[in-house]
Amino acid sequence: MTVEETIKQLALETRKASRQVAALSTEKKNRVLQGMAQSLLSQKKYIQQENEKDLIAGREKGLSAAMLDRLTLSDKVIDSMVGGLQEIIALPDPVGEISDMNKMPSGITVGRMRIPLGVIGMIYESRPNVTVDAAALCLKAGNAVVLRGGSEAIHSNLALAKILQDALMADGISAAAIQVIPITDRDAINVMLSLEEDIDLIIPRGGEGLIRFVAQNSRIPVLKHYKGVCHIFVDKDADFSMAEEIVFNSKVQRPGVCNSLEALLVHKDAAEAFLPLLQARLSSAGVELRCCPVAKEIIPDAVEAVESDWGMEFLELILAVKVVDDMDAAMAHIVEYGSQHTESIITSNYANAQRFLREVDSSSVMVNASTRFSDGGQYGLGAEIGISTTKLHAYGPMGLKELTTKKFIVYGDGQIRA
Amino acid sequence: MTVEETIKQLALETRKASRQVAALSTEKKNRVLQGMAQSLLSQKKYIQQENEKDLIAGREKGLSAAMLDRLTLSDKVIDSMVGGLQEIIALPDPVGEISDMNKMPSGITVGRMRIPLGVIGMIYESRPNVTVDAAALCLKAGNAVVLRGGSEAIHSNLALAKILQDALMADGISAAAIQVIPITDRDAINVMLSLEEDIDLIIPRGGEGLIRFVAQNSRIPVLKHYKGVCHIFVDKDADFSMAEEIVFNSKVQRPGVCNSLEALLVHKDAAEAFLPLLQARLSSAGVELRCCPVAKEIIPDAVEAVESDWGMEFLELILAVKVVDDMDAAMAHIVEYGSQHTESIITSNYANAQRFLREVDSSSVMVNASTRFSDGGQYGLGAEIGISTTKLHAYGPMGLKELTTKKFIVYGDGQIRA
Repeated sequence: MTVEETIKQLALETRKASRQVAALSTEKKNRVLQGMAQSLLSQKKYIQQENEKDLIAGREKGLSAAMLDRLTLSDKVIDSMVGGLQEIIALPDPVGEISDMNKMPSGITVGRMRIPLGVIGMIYESRPNVTVDAAALCLKAGNAVVLRGGSEAIHSNLALAKILQDALMADGISAAAIQVIPITDRDAINVMLSLEEDIDLIIPRGGEGLIRFVAQNSRIPVLKHYKGVCHIFVDKDADFSMAEEIVFNSKVQRPGVCNSLEALLVHKDAAEAFLPLLQARLSSAGVELRCCPVAKEIIPDAVEAVESDWGMEFLELILAVKVVDDMDAAMAHIVEYGSQHTESIITSNYANAQRFLREVDSSSVMVNASTRFSDGGQYGLGAEIGISTTKLHAYGPMGLKELTTKKFIVYGDGQIRA
Repeated sequence: MTVEETIKQLALETRKASRQVAALSTEKKNRVLQGMAQSLLSQKKYIQQENEKDLIAGREKGLSAAMLDRLTLSDKVIDSMVGGLQEIIALPDPVGEISDMNKMPSGITVGRMRIPLGVIGMIYESRPNVTVDAAALCLKAGNAVVLRGGSEAIHSNLALAKILQDALMADGISAAAIQVIPITDRDAINVMLSLEEDIDLIIPRGGEGLIRFVAQNSRIPVLKHYKGVCHIFVDKDADFSMAEEIVFNSKVQRPGVCNSLEALLVHKDAAEAFLPLLQARLSSAGVELRCCPVAKEIIPDAVEAVESDWGMEFLELILAVKVVDDMDAAMAHIVEYGSQHTESIITSNYANAQRFLREVDSSSVMVNASTRFSDGGQYGLGAEIGISTTKLHAYGPMGLKELTTKKFIVYGDGQIRA
């Protein structure tokens, strides 16, 4: 079979399996997830043997230490995958929830029932733990899944998939409900992205290059975010010590993630008092400030910002800083340079807080809180399958509910249309 | 300017205008819609003069009488557009609704706020009334809109757009919030479908050919249904006189629309008693039955169905009829030949009714009701912008809410992430 035929066949089987998965009871889904957790522990040796093949190949290919670290399925990583499964077991099952039931003038009763999407396609890079997390979330929401991980993790991913599939089969569920594409060429992604009849949704996770490639080549709807360029606006009425804590936390607590702070906007009436305080605090953590001319006048030893610093996702200890005339100028800057991920205002002014929340159209908008809270777990969604900065279907962190949709249900007793 | 530059420029202006529209109060949106209604009535003559240009060109091009009829902006059609505007004014404004507010363990309060999508692109065929309906629905939901109607209605659409834009400007709103693309080549559609930065959602309305073209060429998410191949399953426990009424209504009341009945599935234990009754009733309305061999044995003078009759959207007085062994066989037929639009079961069996509702994953699933109820108005959505048989974002009839999304909002008082 060609690459195309292989993947088409695999997706067709997944589509078939998705009907079985959609009808599973909550109890059965949880039992299968429990079986997966047990097998991950009891087959740790097998997983680590297969993982070692990827690590050897990775070392030969000269992968960086950081990449090899992300690839390694240590005892600790396997334990945390098991912990993730336990969390998903504990989450309420979204499937079957009925809402909005209303009696219509015609006499029919109309409502909505939450149902699985069907087949989810995940495309991701090096971390093999995504294989387990994503498969478990999809299963709990009643979906089948086609997984396409990075080529450098292929042995690890296939080993993990085998364990998950064995757990499915032990409970009489088709193994095709969780599939790892065994072909590592990029061609395989192109074929996958063309199967609009058999895959309902694509979720890419990885660097901006991969995500843009997926978005540009997909016939299937894609839920994605390219990057997180998060802004904080410190208003003139801000509590400066609160602002200092929040900016420090947003920038420094974990700079390499998408909800960390990249640019700070400071009201001109606050700049003179606030910026020196902030500089002292941030320099203690080694943060480099890249400042607009006005900010640089106040803190002269900072670096001068260049145009490309605005809208840049640094993902390291660098912060762009701009002094703005007022909240309107701050919001205009966010429209121009933001990524619709997360923005926060620090203010004690009620009207400004409400207006910022209403008018900034990022997927998360905050008042007096760290951007680092922009996360499915922190928002009470349970687990997170990804973040969307596209407004369709889901906007912001996505949990189990975002892996489902709602159909209309109608109860009649013989009504016909007049 | 080239076609590409013209359309890019226009979409960019619409994007800019969308920010203004998103922030409008309900009162102001309703006042503008009221102004549009008044102008449509006071400028009826101008509209009909421009419409006449399209009708003359249409007659020269040899358009069918039915097409010319759909193109004609008679007094009655204009009055009904005005009536549509009044209905939209009466609908509640979905924008700004806050839901799911919960206090999290960290101390932040997290909720969701309903916001407009931004810019909607409508691509449609001959009826110029879509120009007014779609623009008004988009505006009420806080969106700007780029409209691309059929080339045969270009003068009518531009005249209607001028009236709508004048009403916007009379209230200080940018005319770019409602735009009709003045270029009638198909190239214009291709350019429009590539503007993923400036258009958030495409809704195509028209024949299957247009919709497939749009779906295949769009970089922007598309909400669509290709066709409506609706099924009714008459269970062995059905009330036959109820089944007869519902099948008759679903097939005959308006056969040319997507929620009319195309295929009937009859339980084998019901076939002998039910099919002759049904044949008598349907033949009174001139319906041709295309039967599977088993059904044809029971009603021998019916036409024998060929394979292509299953899954066919007849849109006329033809009904495919198949006798099935049980509900499982009926559901398997729907999976194979259905279009995920609307299916209904006629039964008095409680367990079967519940199982059919749960397991059939069409966008509308009904018990003991006519498929003709599958409609935004009948479901209480108010007005309908279209129907989606794609599971992402919206599934089934779409009203104002489906032209919006939800962002996360977070209220803190200084919380940082631990």
